[in-house]
Amino acid sequence: MRKPKIVILGAGYGGLMTAVRLQKLVGVNEADIVLVNKNDYHYETTWLHEASAGTMHHDKVRYEIRNVIDKSKVEFVQDTVLEINKDEKKVILEKSEISYDYLVIAIGGEPETFGIKGLKEFAFGITNVNSSRQLREHMEYQFATYNMEEEKKEERLSIIVGGAGFTGIEFLGELTNRIPELCHEYDVDFNKVKIICVEAAPTVLPGFDPELVKYAVSQLERKGVEFLIGTAIKECTPEGIFVAKGEDEPHEIKAGTVVWAAGIRGNAIVEKSGFEAMRGRVKVQLDLRAPGHDDVFIIGDSALMINEEINRPYPPTAQIAMQQGETCARNLAALIRNKTDLETFKPDIKGTVCSLGEDDAIGVVFGKKIMGTKAAFMKKVVDNRSLYMIGGVPLVLKKGKLKFL
Amino acid sequence: MRKPKIVILGAGYGGLMTAVRLQKLVGVNEADIVLVNKNDYHYETTWLHEASAGTMHHDKVRYEIRNVIDKSKVEFVQDTVLEINKDEKKVILEKSEISYDYLVIAIGGEPETFGIKGLKEFAFGITNVNSSRQLREHMEYQFATYNMEEEKKEERLSIIVGGAGFTGIEFLGELTNRIPELCHEYDVDFNKVKIICVEAAPTVLPGFDPELVKYAVSQLERKGVEFLIGTAIKECTPEGIFVAKGEDEPHEIKAGTVVWAAGIRGNAIVEKSGFEAMRGRVKVQLDLRAPGHDDVFIIGDSALMINEEINRPYPPTAQIAMQQGETCARNLAALIRNKTDLETFKPDIKGTVCSLGEDDAIGVVFGKKIMGTKAAFMKKVVDNRSLYMIGGVPLVLKKGKLKFL
Repeated sequence: MRKPKIVILGAGYGGLMTAVRLQKLVGVNEADIVLVNKNDYHYETTWLHEASAGTMHHDKVRYEIRNVIDKSKVEFVQDTVLEINKDEKKVILEKSEISYDYLVIAIGGEPETFGIKGLKEFAFGITNVNSSRQLREHMEYQFATYNMEEEKKEERLSIIVGGAGFTGIEFLGELTNRIPELCHEYDVDFNKVKIICVEAAPTVLPGFDPELVKYAVSQLERKGVEFLIGTAIKECTPEGIFVAKGEDEPHEIKAGTVVWAAGIRGNAIVEKSGFEAMRGRVKVQLDLRAPGHDDVFIIGDSALMINEEINRPYPPTAQIAMQQGETCARNLAALIRNKTDLETFKPDIKGTVCSLGEDDAIGVVFGKKIMGTKAAFMKKVVDNRSLYMIGGVPLVLKKGKLKFL
Repeated sequence: MRKPKIVILGAGYGGLMTAVRLQKLVGVNEADIVLVNKNDYHYETTWLHEASAGTMHHDKVRYEIRNVIDKSKVEFVQDTVLEINKDEKKVILEKSEISYDYLVIAIGGEPETFGIKGLKEFAFGITNVNSSRQLREHMEYQFATYNMEEEKKEERLSIIVGGAGFTGIEFLGELTNRIPELCHEYDVDFNKVKIICVEAAPTVLPGFDPELVKYAVSQLERKGVEFLIGTAIKECTPEGIFVAKGEDEPHEIKAGTVVWAAGIRGNAIVEKSGFEAMRGRVKVQLDLRAPGHDDVFIIGDSALMINEEINRPYPPTAQIAMQQGETCARNLAALIRNKTDLETFKPDIKGTVCSLGEDDAIGVVFGKKIMGTKAAFMKKVVDNRSLYMIGGVPLVLKKGKLKFL
């Protein structure tokens, strides 16, 4: 009897969790499992704001996939997904093709720029290891260049962060810690540096508890961040951005660095492959399969699930992606054993902690509001938890944030 | 009786040596000594190739002037020289003016670009701390950007070094050590990196012993440097350079980084202030004074002295600048004591060592040819010697290259 072939696309939180759970659930004789990923490493997306600011080296943020998978059960293929051919049940990769019986699409999302002119070309992103270290080096280069110019351009020392959501705020927290180091390294007067956060929504961290938001804003303002709330970026140029509040005429803010940290959409490959999607996200069934495709699971940033309690989609978080990976693995195991009653996915949101730098954070954990060093401690617990869930204690010891021990 | 005022412009090798010798030779009641410098630090110009390549941090290359001068005898003024008014015996600085009875012009040289189009705008220089760290960061940014682009631009990984003189060769030595680190840091394939050295003269290191030159070239070639000798840079653009051999039609070499490491001329301020100069260098008297100006000494890169033995100018080296500083200090002491027989300057060239990286070098010391680790050791001795001459043992212990101990 031919063994079914399970192909997992992507080794982010969702895909890698599916692989490591599946390798425990399924015997060598039950299925062939293939994990496909562009890089030979997994990276902690939720730590990229640190690598981007330069407060943590990017090598700390990633680890080799081969170190966490059981090579006797999971075959790892390093390649880039170009398209999925559902009808022929195969995936077209850059260097080869791969056929499947069951497919897991866990290829992550893409920055959503809402069609704002110039953002794709001129703004930096906190998207992956490559973009994070480019952003880090771009800022260093701006500071290094400042003293070289006879006519000093103070805009070189201005950093605009577009978006006061989770990523934007966490990046600002790291950035305010990094700036004094950059000033020291490049003999730059701290008072000349500007950090401006532009957010179109009427509040910082929409959806967060107002008391916590107030604390976050005052902490970041104290460290030098200027907030422009209810203000939309109309255009990004090589020199900075044009912004407008409400119906006002747009005006220019010059800056050597513009970071776009707002919004994520599903992966374009999903739409390109013929799945019905909204902004690249497929509204999946409760068992995480794509409607009409009993052999295809979609999890993580390209999957859309509605939180019935508030009638809004669940946010694309690492926490949910990993939980989806666990359910997905169990459902795959059921399918290859010809069981028909698949498990229904239900997120179990233990809490949300938003970092404000090394020693400060805000959050709600098990329904309780926390802030300051206590929240910063919880943030490290959360970060270590994702390592533990994928690679157990060895990975936590190797890559974990253990400074508090 | 009014004390004469001695003003020393510049705290490079020549100026700082003049100051530290003078503070020993002259009593507090004999003269007022003022040292003027743009930065509050002195930097080791001959170590800048290391800071530029990124093999040594720029803070290792500089030290605070206040730490080596005797504040009871020398007043330090941090300001930038704009012009010298010989007739009114005063110096116009950016923030103030200062009058003098005796003046030492030791403001260093400027890169000589020989009118080659685009070099000033688009090539990086190994000129000072600011330019060196900008060059270092520029290369890092090129490597960081390479993996971010969907269509890979291999020219981002190409570095052109214009000039195979002392600075060019020493920079290449460090660069070949640095490239593997950059490749590791930015996940770049070492084989895609190109280092090209372009030299208009018919040989590398003109004036050096041919056997040593051959050794240097083969060592650098072995580490991946490609030499284009007898080849002139015709133009530098943001994309690279145009070169031509002899009468050939110029052709383009694309490169993300172009470094101009050839040629130094005197400081434009010298000509601007009305001293008769050739390429910014004043042919000084044997006592180091400017012809026709008994109260003005010119030393270092802006001074021109002919080596009668070969009827060519002495090269602008740290060794000679420091020796000039010593003579200059003694002559100043004589002048303020109303002595008329000033000392004649005669360079005492103990040797020349050209580094090829951390553990390799070539050189001629006390007339003897050396190469390899022995020469690398001698290079560190030379480097430490300049520290010792300015700041004694404490400065050597603080900033010295003591790895060989």
